[in-house]
Amino acid sequence: MTEENIKDILTRVRKGALSVDAGVEKLKHLPFEDVGFARIDHHRALRQGFPEVIFGRGKTVRQIEGIVKRMLPHQHNVLITRTNAEAFRAVRKLERKAKFYPESGTILVHRDKTVHGKGKILIACAGTADIPVAEEALVTTEAMGNPAESLYDVGVAGIHRILSERSRLAEARVIIVIAGMEGALPSVVGGLVSVPVIAVPTSVGYGASFNGIAALLGMLNSCASNVTVVNIDNGFGAGYVASLINRL
Amino acid sequence: MTEENIKDILTRVRKGALSVDAGVEKLKHLPFEDVGFARIDHHRALRQGFPEVIFGRGKTVRQIEGIVKRMLPHQHNVLITRTNAEAFRAVRKLERKAKFYPESGTILVHRDKTVHGKGKILIACAGTADIPVAEEALVTTEAMGNPAESLYDVGVAGIHRILSERSRLAEARVIIVIAGMEGALPSVVGGLVSVPVIAVPTSVGYGASFNGIAALLGMLNSCASNVTVVNIDNGFGAGYVASLINRL
Amino acid sequence: MTEENIKDILTRVRKGALSVDAGVEKLKHLPFEDVGFARIDHHRALRQGFPEVIFGRGKTVRQIEGIVKRMLPHQHNVLITRTNAEAFRAVRKLERKAKFYPESGTILVHRDKTVHGKGKILIACAGTADIPVAEEALVTTEAMGNPAESLYDVGVAGIHRILSERSRLAEARVIIVIAGMEGALPSVVGGLVSVPVIAVPTSVGYGASFNGIAALLGMLNSCASNVTVVNIDNGFGAGYVASLINRL
Amino acid sequence: MTEENIKDILTRVRKGALSVDAGVEKLKHLPFEDVGFARIDHHRALRQGFPEVIFGRGKTVRQIEGIVKRMLPHQHNVLITRTNAEAFRAVRKLERKAKFYPESGTILVHRDKTVHGKGKILIACAGTADIPVAEEALVTTEAMGNPAESLYDVGVAGIHRILSERSRLAEARVIIVIAGMEGALPSVVGGLVSVPVIAVPTSVGYGASFNGIAALLGMLNSCASNVTVVNIDNGFGAGYVASLINRL
Amino acid sequence: MTEENIKDILTRVRKGALSVDAGVEKLKHLPFEDVGFARIDHHRALRQGFPEVIFGRGKTVRQIEGIVKRMLPHQHNVLITRTNAEAFRAVRKLERKAKFYPESGTILVHRDKTVHGKGKILIACAGTADIPVAEEALVTTEAMGNPAESLYDVGVAGIHRILSERSRLAEARVIIVIAGMEGALPSVVGGLVSVPVIAVPTSVGYGASFNGIAALLGMLNSCASNVTVVNIDNGFGAGYVASLINRL
Amino acid sequence: MTEENIKDILTRVRKGALSVDAGVEKLKHLPFEDVGFARIDHHRALRQGFPEVIFGRGKTVRQIEGIVKRMLPHQHNVLITRTNAEAFRAVRKLERKAKFYPESGTILVHRDKTVHGKGKILIACAGTADIPVAEEALVTTEAMGNPAESLYDVGVAGIHRILSERSRLAEARVIIVIAGMEGALPSVVGGLVSVPVIAVPTSVGYGASFNGIAALLGMLNSCASNVTVVNIDNGFGAGYVASLINRL
Amino acid sequence: MTEENIKDILTRVRKGALSVDAGVEKLKHLPFEDVGFARIDHHRALRQGFPEVIFGRGKTVRQIEGIVKRMLPHQHNVLITRTNAEAFRAVRKLERKAKFYPESGTILVHRDKTVHGKGKILIACAGTADIPVAEEALVTTEAMGNPAESLYDVGVAGIHRILSERSRLAEARVIIVIAGMEGALPSVVGGLVSVPVIAVPTSVGYGASFNGIAALLGMLNSCASNVTVVNIDNGFGAGYVASLINRL
Amino acid sequence: MTEENIKDILTRVRKGALSVDAGVEKLKHLPFEDVGFARIDHHRALRQGFPEVIFGRGKTVRQIEGIVKRMLPHQHNVLITRTNAEAFRAVRKLERKAKFYPESGTILVHRDKTVHGKGKILIACAGTADIPVAEEALVTTEAMGNPAESLYDVGVAGIHRILSERSRLAEARVIIVIAGMEGALPSVVGGLVSVPVIAVPTSVGYGASFNGIAALLGMLNSCASNVTVVNIDNGFGAGYVASLINRL
Repeated sequence: MTEENIKDILTRVRKGALSVDAGVEKLKHLPFEDVGFARIDHHRALRQGFPEVIFGRGKTVRQIEGIVKRMLPHQHNVLITRTNAEAFRAVRKLERKAKFYPESGTILVHRDKTVHGKGKILIACAGTADIPVAEEALVTTEAMGNPAESLYDVGVAGIHRILSERSRLAEARVIIVIAGMEGALPSVVGGLVSVPVIAVPTSVGYGASFNGIAALLGMLNSCASNVTVVNIDNGFGAGYVASLINRL
Repeated sequence: MTEENIKDILTRVRKGALSVDAGVEKLKHLPFEDVGFARIDHHRALRQGFPEVIFGRGKTVRQIEGIVKRMLPHQHNVLITRTNAEAFRAVRKLERKAKFYPESGTILVHRDKTVHGKGKILIACAGTADIPVAEEALVTTEAMGNPAESLYDVGVAGIHRILSERSRLAEARVIIVIAGMEGALPSVVGGLVSVPVIAVPTSVGYGASFNGIAALLGMLNSCASNVTVVNIDNGFGAGYVASLINRL
Repeated sequence: MTEENIKDILTRVRKGALSVDAGVEKLKHLPFEDVGFARIDHHRALRQGFPEVIFGRGKTVRQIEGIVKRMLPHQHNVLITRTNAEAFRAVRKLERKAKFYPESGTILVHRDKTVHGKGKILIACAGTADIPVAEEALVTTEAMGNPAESLYDVGVAGIHRILSERSRLAEARVIIVIAGMEGALPSVVGGLVSVPVIAVPTSVGYGASFNGIAALLGMLNSCASNVTVVNIDNGFGAGYVASLINRL
Repeated sequence: MTEENIKDILTRVRKGALSVDAGVEKLKHLPFEDVGFARIDHHRALRQGFPEVIFGRGKTVRQIEGIVKRMLPHQHNVLITRTNAEAFRAVRKLERKAKFYPESGTILVHRDKTVHGKGKILIACAGTADIPVAEEALVTTEAMGNPAESLYDVGVAGIHRILSERSRLAEARVIIVIAGMEGALPSVVGGLVSVPVIAVPTSVGYGASFNGIAALLGMLNSCASNVTVVNIDNGFGAGYVASLINRL
Repeated sequence: MTEENIKDILTRVRKGALSVDAGVEKLKHLPFEDVGFARIDHHRALRQGFPEVIFGRGKTVRQIEGIVKRMLPHQHNVLITRTNAEAFRAVRKLERKAKFYPESGTILVHRDKTVHGKGKILIACAGTADIPVAEEALVTTEAMGNPAESLYDVGVAGIHRILSERSRLAEARVIIVIAGMEGALPSVVGGLVSVPVIAVPTSVGYGASFNGIAALLGMLNSCASNVTVVNIDNGFGAGYVASLINRL
Repeated sequence: MTEENIKDILTRVRKGALSVDAGVEKLKHLPFEDVGFARIDHHRALRQGFPEVIFGRGKTVRQIEGIVKRMLPHQHNVLITRTNAEAFRAVRKLERKAKFYPESGTILVHRDKTVHGKGKILIACAGTADIPVAEEALVTTEAMGNPAESLYDVGVAGIHRILSERSRLAEARVIIVIAGMEGALPSVVGGLVSVPVIAVPTSVGYGASFNGIAALLGMLNSCASNVTVVNIDNGFGAGYVASLINRL
Repeated sequence: MTEENIKDILTRVRKGALSVDAGVEKLKHLPFEDVGFARIDHHRALRQGFPEVIFGRGKTVRQIEGIVKRMLPHQHNVLITRTNAEAFRAVRKLERKAKFYPESGTILVHRDKTVHGKGKILIACAGTADIPVAEEALVTTEAMGNPAESLYDVGVAGIHRILSERSRLAEARVIIVIAGMEGALPSVVGGLVSVPVIAVPTSVGYGASFNGIAALLGMLNSCASNVTVVNIDNGFGAGYVASLINRL
Repeated sequence: MTEENIKDILTRVRKGALSVDAGVEKLKHLPFEDVGFARIDHHRALRQGFPEVIFGRGKTVRQIEGIVKRMLPHQHNVLITRTNAEAFRAVRKLERKAKFYPESGTILVHRDKTVHGKGKILIACAGTADIPVAEEALVTTEAMGNPAESLYDVGVAGIHRILSERSRLAEARVIIVIAGMEGALPSVVGGLVSVPVIAVPTSVGYGASFNGIAALLGMLNSCASNVTVVNIDNGFGAGYVASLINRL
């Protein structure tokens, strides 16, 4: 979508040749910028409520840099997941405010800190080794304008640890539960609350954990009815959906 | 939890020995009725916002009957999933209002029809063979007090079918997307809307669909960020979570 | 091992040509009766502390009958697992005291009711549909001379159900925990007690439970250190090992 | 097949002792050159329409060099896939025209640029990280004499990106669709066109993508009937078959 | 798409308000008939070159009947796969010309027998037990207007059987190769010809064939470059793509 | 291969225009009889040392009958595996000597009882439920002219059972070891003998035996170096290879 | 749980406001110390009979150091598994007595050497490559106060090696059996003894051992009834449970 | 087994207290040397016909050195598989004649070159990348005293390559066939010969080859009856069994 296209649409709207609704519709579904190796979806915020997020894995530093350069003029916040310190150095040259979270490899340019969430998002994780995934979820919820809190190391084999946090569980509007190994925490949390629980299996474990398959299957088979699941280690996805729910 | 327990708590609350909040807390987490083969969780509505649902598979007709008999005095609505016509006949003897949905094997006693949802839930399914799962989701959302609508046979290989329903997609507050085979519909729908999408893989397909594994993996790897997933054929779970979100 | 062999050994022992220990050793490892389709291990009680148990699946009623006929003169108790009503009718003709447990398909001839266990075995199961496996475990512990108790329907999604049974958990010397779906109960129970927990995954569930694989993996990856695991639906194995431990 | 063999056949053909057809048949199926570690199939172009392609993985630089040396006198174009810069340096010493494509690790000696394809091949890929596979497909189609074009970053979660390219889709005679993660793009493209679609799953993704299994299963279960599938990351195979089809 | 829509488009085309190309485009992508449980895509022949095919599995006889009734006025040929004799009886009441192929469960209404294919399609299968899948492929190619031939029982363990058919292989324009067990036939055939080979793994076999997984993996890993693969037992898909290629 | 072909070859051999060896070679690789649904390989005995065996699964009774009818004039012994009583009744009408082995579903026409084996084949199986597979192996070795013996119910959990048969193990020239569940018997037997051991995993077991996968993997990973493996339940294959080895 | 909490509880117990039992209960289930990245469970020894063990994998050296620093004042023995030499150097600065076992990566601070076990634990492993896992089990049993012994390289393919150790097997109160590849040793050992056998599959092997899956499945399907299983390579878990059993 | 034991046996044999056969039996099954980390089976040659082979993977250079040192005085030939150049340097210090095969990582001390095989072993492999596995097989057959030959790069996609070697196939007494990717070569070779074929799947391939699973499954499902299979990449096992067969 070139500037000409946008002008044309707006001209037609002003003249009454196009209703306002129809104009919004047109602007919503077409526009992206083709930079060869990627098509940047500048109007995604309009259509989906949050600007496009850059998934860093499989992209070169040069490609990330190129995309960020084109996004910065359009978006207040830019979020890049699964990337590294080298990409961060390149991004910081473009924007001083960029911040790097090394455990999860996330970069956030957080210029607009408006709160969009209507309540608090709670992020609980079973073990210390799950913290990188929790961090990715936390940064995502922050980037999308939510108050969020986290509870670390509350795995089910010491059930009193999660039970002692019942009041914090009760205050949350959405809960993200992160666990590797047997992935049992979402079922326990799910049974204690009346809000949606988003479960994130992690690749933490060894042997028959099969890099997160055990946890993933456990969560998909949760006997708590309020649990839905995202991909293994997908802290970003959980943070994203939790934010959408919290905005409703 | 016997009647004595409840009396005791209430007496202490009346006397001021127990605050109201503390009383609620106590009543919330303890009570269930042990009938030998099952522990019926009568206070689950209090704790989780919806009464316990009976998962029919693996339970005998006698067991289902026994549980329903104990639930009917406490709950307005009773929902039984994955059951059959024989169980339905037994339940109808206990309550005339019970209704049976044979495609999904669901029984619903729907005495309280209060609307709890704040918006509309849309249920879209890819093919005709996915309808039983869609029905389970639909009955669940109904039982939990939501306006709901469904779109059938809108699979991605004829993309114009789902694109022509954009306005209905845009009106929904939560969307359930049900698909077997390659399970691609949630990604497409997810990209068109700004609300949470709950994806349900179905066991529809053959060969390398591996009874729903292909669809499940497809949905877990969705490139749309607003998609979470439930178990294969779990229409109930999707309906349940969608209802919780719609109540927020 | 024919009668002659046994006589010979005993004669040599009486004459001092063979020490008592050496005699036991000889008698312990050699003897079985070859009936063509099976080799019945009459001295297994001597070697392993409990007579051979007949695994019914894959054996014809005739074969089961043939084995039982040869066992009855040597053993007080005869246990047959994974069999059916037809086999039971054949066995009852041989021994009136035989009893059939239809949910698990177990036959028990329980003539010797001596208590061998030093404490109580507790059998906890997550859902109503897991009861057949629990029954197999219970009959096995009984057959091997243990006081045993069971707790049904104490799955983790209603965590107060198992927490309200803490005192019974604390009294057990060994605990068998049976669960399908996500198989999370052993981790929670394991974290509450200081005795060995034997976890039995069941094939209860659907979709991504993959007939018990989800529960099996969950249990193998339990973050509670006192959990060991047996095969899917193997109530017998769990009851057997629990009995061995309880005899120590 | 030595020179003597060929002479003998030709002499017999000239004398009429062998029909021309029979001569072709003989020459087609026998000849290869045994270099110890490999049997080079010099007549493959005759039999299969394109000279043998060297699959680099698992071959040492010395082996690749040895094979190329023997191919260069017989073939105009030499294609080596899944190799590296070191092999390229060795090959360039043998033939200056060799070109290296580092993203996919492909070497092409492109001396004969005759166009064999009757139409255009379109190569569409879902994300930026799929570009190396697309490059392998593109170089292959080029080496086999086809006009080809590519569309990058047109994944289904922003469906307008592929829909805006309908006219280019409509112009292609064969389409290669490359996608990782959920692998949904071939179903959408397949539903928009009336030509064969060759789907290439890629190992792009993480967690439950299982290195391309999710995408592979998605494509095998495509609800679009015009889709066939090649191995994960097999850009070469897709390019090869697309070229064969385009030559028909 | 109602009649009114079509009239409107045509009127605008006649008046010159819409170019012919734009008219075709409009007619191609929108129209389907919503019958509640299915959306029938009447213009698919226009868009994809062949009318919609009914996949019978998971549809009730009533649903199939309903769809066929609406298709018959629009399509000359109607193809229903994976269905049964009961559905056939219902369809034959609607159209006398319907024919049933019981081995594969295919129904074909073959009113238009125009030849569209430019050459011959050859269908080779490895064993007698693969014939049902071959039949599905054959009926599909017939329905789509192709001369087709089949070779049965030419598996690789008696390599002379396929080698003795070299001349028929050489005459085909596209080849479908169907095999269960180790699925090796496509590699051998692929190496003998210069045309595209579409491989269909079948669920024929036992034990470690895992219902066709062994054959599927074998074909995906074929060392012949001209092989693409469809789903296990998907004779229809292979026939469909072969027909598209043969029409080019 | 018609009679004319054979005559021609023989004539040329008699005249010296073809050496005897060349004649054998010609006769060995070409001939089969095409009966439409199957190509019967009458000269397989010549080429492979044993006539073609009919794999019954997936063939109709009519097809089996048709093949047997054509084989009987050429072969002394006819072996049909994985078939049923109905096929047997049809075969016995063609040849009175046919015998049926119901546990494994094998039919054998055993007219030629020449001994070809140079030693004894021993067939050991772990449990009573493995007997059907053992029977298939035994009938195959018999059909191919071998003295064979079997040992039933010698599984490793009562190691004295197999150790007490050491002398019979030592006498065998080839040993077939059949086991389900953990499939450990081949490793133990392999370590006791100096002859080749052919391991057959069976689908006997439940839960994590996954229909024989556990046994198959166990055998493939055997720490005894003299073990090779055939498909799950493939008693025929084991008997066949054992016979080939025993003939050397 | 701060010192104040403990004082308060004890004060109330002394005053009779709290019974002794109730006091124990309170102290048992609540206390842990939240250090941000972990919740250290200081009273676990009270509740579970052994202090919390640090699982090193996925924890930074700094985190391990932080946890150890807080544990040393409360616990006599500190056990850290799956860690490395760098963490050991940090721990030794905190406590001179720390010892490192490099094959398994275990650190043990062994200040209290009281014997708690009532008998001997025997650790048998199949091959030399299994020794690291055996070491982890051995150090764990030592840390928990047990006399233990080990037998290395007694795999089943040389059955005389384990048979020659019968007397040592007979003396043990619990046996840990460790094996990779086909994992058959537990079945053989299980059949020779009358005590519980804890089987540990290892990732030793290659190809179809699938990093320990073959051994794991073999052990789960053991035909010896006295075998339970822990996760692949989980020497610690086996040592832990063996210690619990040995303390009974 | 100490020297005393051996003396005692021999003395008893000389005195006639023990028959010669009984003496052999005794000597055959007991003896091994316990070096702590390993039990060296010096009498294995007596019992199994070939001395123990050292599997190098998972053993330290020191351990390999220690085992070789003890073997050299007892065995003429010493074979070490899956090891490396470092181990080779240590072994060559012990014995100058040691030779290293770097592609497969095999060490052979070949002092005794007696021929034990009665015929020729042929080793055929499908591609250049399979050569390391072929080398392991070749060295093993050599070490065990067999004339052996190899055919490289005769994969089925150029079927004329293997067909042109028919005469060499016909001369072999046992054939080892090695292939990765789809693993089809054993079926083709199996169908051409009347001797046992030992199939070795290799991990050569990518994507859906799953490190050799595709080839393994293909070979287990071979439609050629004379094929047995060993583990992925197990050239040693194939060479070992082939040697045993060739010695018969």
